[in-house]
Amino acid sequence: MKAPMHEYLQPLMPPTLANLAGTIVRRVTDIGRALLRSRPTDTDISNAEPQERGVGHVSLVGAGPGDPDLITLKALKALAAADVVLHDQLVSPEVLALVPQHAQRIDVGKKGYGRACKQSDINDLMVAFAKAGRRVVRLKAGDPLVFGRLEEEIVALETAAISFDVVPGISAAQGAAASLGVSLTRRRGARRFQAITGHADHGRLPEDFDWAGLADPKATTAVYMPKATIADLCSELMARGLPGPHPAAAVFNATRADEVMMSADLATLPQRIAAAPSQGPCIILIGVAATRRAACLASSARAHAGSEA
Amino acid sequence: MKAPMHEYLQPLMPPTLANLAGTIVRRVTDIGRALLRSRPTDTDISNAEPQERGVGHVSLVGAGPGDPDLITLKALKALAAADVVLHDQLVSPEVLALVPQHAQRIDVGKKGYGRACKQSDINDLMVAFAKAGRRVVRLKAGDPLVFGRLEEEIVALETAAISFDVVPGISAAQGAAASLGVSLTRRRGARRFQAITGHADHGRLPEDFDWAGLADPKATTAVYMPKATIADLCSELMARGLPGPHPAAAVFNATRADEVMMSADLATLPQRIAAAPSQGPCIILIGVAATRRAACLASSARAHAGSEA
Repeated sequence: MKAPMHEYLQPLMPPTLANLAGTIVRRVTDIGRALLRSRPTDTDISNAEPQERGVGHVSLVGAGPGDPDLITLKALKALAAADVVLHDQLVSPEVLALVPQHAQRIDVGKKGYGRACKQSDINDLMVAFAKAGRRVVRLKAGDPLVFGRLEEEIVALETAAISFDVVPGISAAQGAAASLGVSLTRRRGARRFQAITGHADHGRLPEDFDWAGLADPKATTAVYMPKATIADLCSELMARGLPGPHPAAAVFNATRADEVMMSADLATLPQRIAAAPSQGPCIILIGVAATRRAACLASSARAHAGSEA
Repeated sequence: MKAPMHEYLQPLMPPTLANLAGTIVRRVTDIGRALLRSRPTDTDISNAEPQERGVGHVSLVGAGPGDPDLITLKALKALAAADVVLHDQLVSPEVLALVPQHAQRIDVGKKGYGRACKQSDINDLMVAFAKAGRRVVRLKAGDPLVFGRLEEEIVALETAAISFDVVPGISAAQGAAASLGVSLTRRRGARRFQAITGHADHGRLPEDFDWAGLADPKATTAVYMPKATIADLCSELMARGLPGPHPAAAVFNATRADEVMMSADLATLPQRIAAAPSQGPCIILIGVAATRRAACLASSARAHAGSEA
């Protein structure tokens, strides 16, 4: 048990109780630390005897977009019970701080668009730990169900007959829209919400896009990993009939302390993104007028003074 | 403080601590009850003096699909701090049990597809409570950003100059896919995830659907509120080129204790849904082969013995 757990329990109680509870939780935490010190910390796979440890399990867990408050209770419980946490590089430090001290934490993040840790390596690690009787959390930024290569991991687990469950998470588009204060659908005007990735295996726009579906003026489109291809995407959408002033917004580091929001339109979005000072992960919402633009600008100004000029 | 809060804190701790913590939390809960008894319970708007109570605030909060573990910490904190909770009818009883006893709970659910409580009434209530200095949670099933008429409520709050924030939630499609153990996107084969509602204002399919976009074989489509129009939707999609055996799945009461999952395809889905014993809310996923069908059937059999024959 680390400090963050205490920080989370306290705000869930009425203020009068929180002070009292704080004292109590600190005492419980001290006891917990003492217990953990007396527990063997060596969690290398090779030291585990499957028959000793029983059957393992893998939870495929969404970490949410970054704000640790946007994690679900189910994800928090999975982390609390984990022996091993295999996490992506995009999982925020604040969420990683929720991993209990006794759990082994392994960064399997695929750096940039490269192959720092292959998908097959991740699959093998999950299977090996679970076969050794460990409770594994595969922690993915956002929602594992959306552009998380979840299916490939499920196939690996099913092939190895490992039990698993999926814990959905708040996806980056949901976090970005919540920060912007705009809905992803509207009763009249935005009948459909759709999510795409701007980035196929070869690093360019996927070749089999349904362009007519994407250029629908009555849809809200979230583009994940858009940076490398946004100029091509916007050109193509305009060539297919969406007007240059069609509204769009970009959010860097959605829901994190260093979040940057910007309003734009299809014609101006590529330049605005290219000029953005943030190097963090970016989500684009097309068809969304950032009606709370004043708030956006204020927030962006706070994070990066001058960048919204 | 009610029992559910205690039930949530306990599993977040290692088992050794949980027993000790349980005792402590029960004691804190008793103290909390005593405090609450001494607090005025009359929270009628008319008794509140704005100048006495300060400025109100509205949190537009996603309750998740039903499983109370799929609520976010941020939503839980908003509930803990709420004076008034205005909730939809689809918010599960298990999530409603997380509303603290001191908060006034008002069901503003629009019964079925009718107009039991008009949207304008809900807007007026939010504004009136906030103007009276109350902390209001507008609690919506799933994610308020997706088919939650969020924009209409935001416009009302902005017009009345009420401060607000949006807390995204796990949407029904995410809950359903997690239960089925299938991804909403695939690296090859399902490039795009899209969400639509099967139900326009007049109770039929919306007339301005982008049918080409919906009939894309490389998309996964979630249909919210599909029951009344599913036969028309499937016919139309087949008429536009999707084959009868194109995979689909339906989940009733996603993530709840009485969840029912069924595998089908476009040709058989309407009959299967019509024959389903569940009256609960239903979400349809088109383009998703329920690869964990065995698990689905087992789960469905548990919920409704014999219904999957």
